Amino acid sequence: MQLSPEQIAEIDTQRNHPQTTLRATVPGMETHLYKVHEVLDHGFIRIIDYMGDDAAICQAARVSYGKGTKSVQNDEGLIRYLMRHWHSTPFEMCEIKLHVKLPVFVARQWIRHRTANVNEYSARYSILDREFYIPEPEALAAQSVVNNQGRGTTLEGVEAARVLEILKADSNRSYDHYEEMISDDGQSGLARELARMNLPANIYTQWYWKVDLHNLFHFLRLRADNHAQYEIRVYADMICKLVKDWVPAAYGAFEDYRLGGATMSGKALKCVRRMLKGEDVTQETSGMSKGEWREFKEIIG
Amino acid sequence: MQLSPEQIAEIDTQRNHPQTTLRATVPGMETHLYKVHEVLDHGFIRIIDYMGDDAAICQAARVSYGKGTKSVQNDEGLIRYLMRHWHSTPFEMCEIKLHVKLPVFVARQWIRHRTANVNEYSARYSILDREFYIPEPEALAAQSVVNNQGRGTTLEGVEAARVLEILKADSNRSYDHYEEMISDDGQSGLARELARMNLPANIYTQWYWKVDLHNLFHFLRLRADNHAQYEIRVYADMICKLVKDWVPAAYGAFEDYRLGGATMSGKALKCVRRMLKGEDVTQETSGMSKGEWREFKEIIG
Amino acid sequence: MQLSPEQIAEIDTQRNHPQTTLRATVPGMETHLYKVHEVLDHGFIRIIDYMGDDAAICQAARVSYGKGTKSVQNDEGLIRYLMRHWHSTPFEMCEIKLHVKLPVFVARQWIRHRTANVNEYSARYSILDREFYIPEPEALAAQSVVNNQGRGTTLEGVEAARVLEILKADSNRSYDHYEEMISDDGQSGLARELARMNLPANIYTQWYWKVDLHNLFHFLRLRADNHAQYEIRVYADMICKLVKDWVPAAYGAFEDYRLGGATMSGKALKCVRRMLKGEDVTQETSGMSKGEWREFKEIIG
Amino acid sequence: MQLSPEQIAEIDTQRNHPQTTLRATVPGMETHLYKVHEVLDHGFIRIIDYMGDDAAICQAARVSYGKGTKSVQNDEGLIRYLMRHWHSTPFEMCEIKLHVKLPVFVARQWIRHRTANVNEYSARYSILDREFYIPEPEALAAQSVVNNQGRGTTLEGVEAARVLEILKADSNRSYDHYEEMISDDGQSGLARELARMNLPANIYTQWYWKVDLHNLFHFLRLRADNHAQYEIRVYADMICKLVKDWVPAAYGAFEDYRLGGATMSGKALKCVRRMLKGEDVTQETSGMSKGEWREFKEIIG
Repeated sequence: MQLSPEQIAEIDTQRNHPQTTLRATVPGMETHLYKVHEVLDHGFIRIIDYMGDDAAICQAARVSYGKGTKSVQNDEGLIRYLMRHWHSTPFEMCEIKLHVKLPVFVARQWIRHRTANVNEYSARYSILDREFYIPEPEALAAQSVVNNQGRGTTLEGVEAARVLEILKADSNRSYDHYEEMISDDGQSGLARELARMNLPANIYTQWYWKVDLHNLFHFLRLRADNHAQYEIRVYADMICKLVKDWVPAAYGAFEDYRLGGATMSGKALKCVRRMLKGEDVTQETSGMSKGEWREFKEIIG
Repeated sequence: MQLSPEQIAEIDTQRNHPQTTLRATVPGMETHLYKVHEVLDHGFIRIIDYMGDDAAICQAARVSYGKGTKSVQNDEGLIRYLMRHWHSTPFEMCEIKLHVKLPVFVARQWIRHRTANVNEYSARYSILDREFYIPEPEALAAQSVVNNQGRGTTLEGVEAARVLEILKADSNRSYDHYEEMISDDGQSGLARELARMNLPANIYTQWYWKVDLHNLFHFLRLRADNHAQYEIRVYADMICKLVKDWVPAAYGAFEDYRLGGATMSGKALKCVRRMLKGEDVTQETSGMSKGEWREFKEIIG
Repeated sequence: MQLSPEQIAEIDTQRNHPQTTLRATVPGMETHLYKVHEVLDHGFIRIIDYMGDDAAICQAARVSYGKGTKSVQNDEGLIRYLMRHWHSTPFEMCEIKLHVKLPVFVARQWIRHRTANVNEYSARYSILDREFYIPEPEALAAQSVVNNQGRGTTLEGVEAARVLEILKADSNRSYDHYEEMISDDGQSGLARELARMNLPANIYTQWYWKVDLHNLFHFLRLRADNHAQYEIRVYADMICKLVKDWVPAAYGAFEDYRLGGATMSGKALKCVRRMLKGEDVTQETSGMSKGEWREFKEIIG
Repeated sequence: MQLSPEQIAEIDTQRNHPQTTLRATVPGMETHLYKVHEVLDHGFIRIIDYMGDDAAICQAARVSYGKGTKSVQNDEGLIRYLMRHWHSTPFEMCEIKLHVKLPVFVARQWIRHRTANVNEYSARYSILDREFYIPEPEALAAQSVVNNQGRGTTLEGVEAARVLEILKADSNRSYDHYEEMISDDGQSGLARELARMNLPANIYTQWYWKVDLHNLFHFLRLRADNHAQYEIRVYADMICKLVKDWVPAAYGAFEDYRLGGATMSGKALKCVRRMLKGEDVTQETSGMSKGEWREFKEIIG
């Protein structure tokens, strides 16, 4: 991930003009603003703006005239209560705006989270850069044989090398042809909106993405999860770190109740109760399918 | 609209703690923050927070590393272009959070705008105040005889007086009974969630309301319109004033293309073309219904 | 709940014109269509239309050309898998449209579920009927002393009688005054949009409400819950019965994983694991607050 | 666009099982159900289900017990009124579900319309087919020199041939490599979620897409427009034809007020009024920018 001198200058200009505000302000987030947090080989996450803090969640929950807070400890208790009882609207009172650079196939998963605002770099209007995601060798995994949509073991030497070779060569050839087609050197030059169709899904795109904290937590719960594809999970993991600096109490509650928690079915709860009474419960006597039982055993460790 | 000394103190506390930020900041909005902007007899609008400014709209539209702006004039041209061509996503990059106090029947219209975040004062949990909307005599209008959902002429002396008398007496009696029912003085006290059902729709409620600029403009177009009920229109008008101080270029474009503009049907456009060629077009030869023709004539003056 | 002869005739007309369709059709739902399912004293739920069935969920999940189903058993397994792993989009492929009559204070809670389509009876345009919700004596509960937003014990004789007396008298007086104000007998008649403000929150309103199955399940999880106010819970309970006849496999999965299930925090899971190993865990050694511990004990029975 | 015998059999099975329903049914739509409507070289649109008809729009607008309609003519007038005055909720009471096959770069534009339900064919789980969009020579246009995001003149012989050659060769090579990488013949086989990143944006994907009529009209207004990219416009045009057979009155109103209509700014309306009074207005005296003036002249013919 290399920024051009112009881009670095643009970022510096923004960081060098502090202003005075009466709005809720989080010093921890101010240090992150506009900076590049690198993800994958050419991607990044930059925080462009944020609204609200932990206190703003409580302020809205209490519909207060002022800060709506009595003490930090008191606020944390309320936030944990709200999270535990699935109160979503107070968390919607915080908002964050990110600038993200990411491969197109990651963007296609990301955009499925509809309750957010997006402005993507337009390949109808502008020319895309020659930047493609080429995985690290450790990230080259075989198709899983137990989970139909997941990854299995890491590819070994020759096969890994061949895959990387293909990805690099095809990316570059596609881009060479993209450039050839749009070139107006001695020809008309194909429309950009058409030429882009030759570019593969590992090319990088960029967007501004704005979302409220409730919907961001929903995104993170699904995408910072082990079942999520590695290439989107690294973005979710990075956002988790940044959110922790923004709303530490809300993030703590999220971590405990969502990321670290688990939902048990009525059947599973019955089994827990029987087991706590000393009964030896097996898959056969649990009423659960094999898949559910396997997942249940993982949860209760 | 009377704030208690505690409420005034809470607001003052918030206004007396300026902080330093790198975020987009609008001096004109900072002067409004937290202050009470009175609407109707007991209602108000308070700006609690805002995200973005005119430049942030352009920054997102251009997916920029920095401010994304070349000049203020240049930005205004882009904003007008975006508004004219119904580009909604750049306007979604600005967000505003309001604290609103409003009669319940106004709240019921307002909430129909779904793309917003709301935390309302809970009458299950808390006790509502004795505050009811009693219209000014000038606002007491008869049912319109031309428009089925609108108002006609203002009510005259005796009838107006009787209406006001009824509204005041019923409001107070309802609230007396509300208090009696929830009182735990020598009795158990009815649950608040039940007792509130006795309160009429002119009682005031409060909420925190957060919305992006695109959806706010949509709200304002419908609610700052002549066809909107007066009691919600005064809130919309007040918000218009505040938005003008927040994002003057975007508001200017909104005023020209939405508030001050009009949509013409294909039939209407054909008529305009015929009329510009000197033809004398009548309702009969226009292809429009009487209602459409009346509205068309109003538009072309 | 009394329908007028005209309303009965309208319903009969619709039920007497079966047509032929190639769309997914559920015989169990056809028997419910348009009929009145009574809720509270004057309310109801009527099914106006539905789209999809259990098979349609699988068909979409598999992006099939045909029914997309191999066997009913196979479909049920897939549906349970989708529910367990929080796949929401296949459930969004089913849609239901209801006509609901409900007290205004229930409507105000209901409308907070934003991801639905609503057309409400307009009190700006039309005159509301003289129909008010008056609770059964058993539903008259005192304010809870343990749960700030809930109900406690049922009110006793004299107090209950007095409350009912107040509600009935105030409802009728308000409606009498509403009629007086809008009357154009010898006067202009106050605009309906103004007169309605005198009506209390226990008056009935009506709306058409259309929602997809995923969002309906979300609504039902929150509103068919013990913590929901009784007056909205009876509507949710009735909808549960109807949905069970519509998509039995999806409803079964919902009942097991959502209604009958529970979410455990990371802390709670650790306690379960310790307890299953024979350790005696108390609130003090659990790391949970008193409130969390109480809820945890309820879950594990 | 070639369906396999299995796919044809699946479609036939669905079309051969008519059932009886009491729901609103549209004979014109029944003839379309499940059939393939071809778009581009390998794409299609298939109607999977629909809810409601023209009468259902009026029924909801009137919150009726029965059909809510007095006469077809009466309904059409109401529908035109609702469309003219931007009443969106009655149109939301109709819903349609489509199965669409489309190139990925078209899907990426389409998905930006967020208020819809989508289930896309999963390339993490399944293997994509070797089907790529290769434009007809007439569709190969040069980058526009007046409109930065549009197309200009059609490419001529040699250049067109070379572009087609590149697109075909690169598509096939990418797919050959995709197959090589995922093959488990003598190797582990790269995970599908990784291998897909080598595939270009002209590969076809498929999804189930469900949307209400209001949001569909919004989609069609933007995508059946001259400024939309040709490859998505042909899908929008096809949907327009199908919607016309579904809700002819609503489509008629949409065609007149949205597709065939235009929004004029306050400035533009002032010009029209001056011109109708005989004044000779030029860009200089109009108060509009050059771009606005050019668009204005197009509108008034």
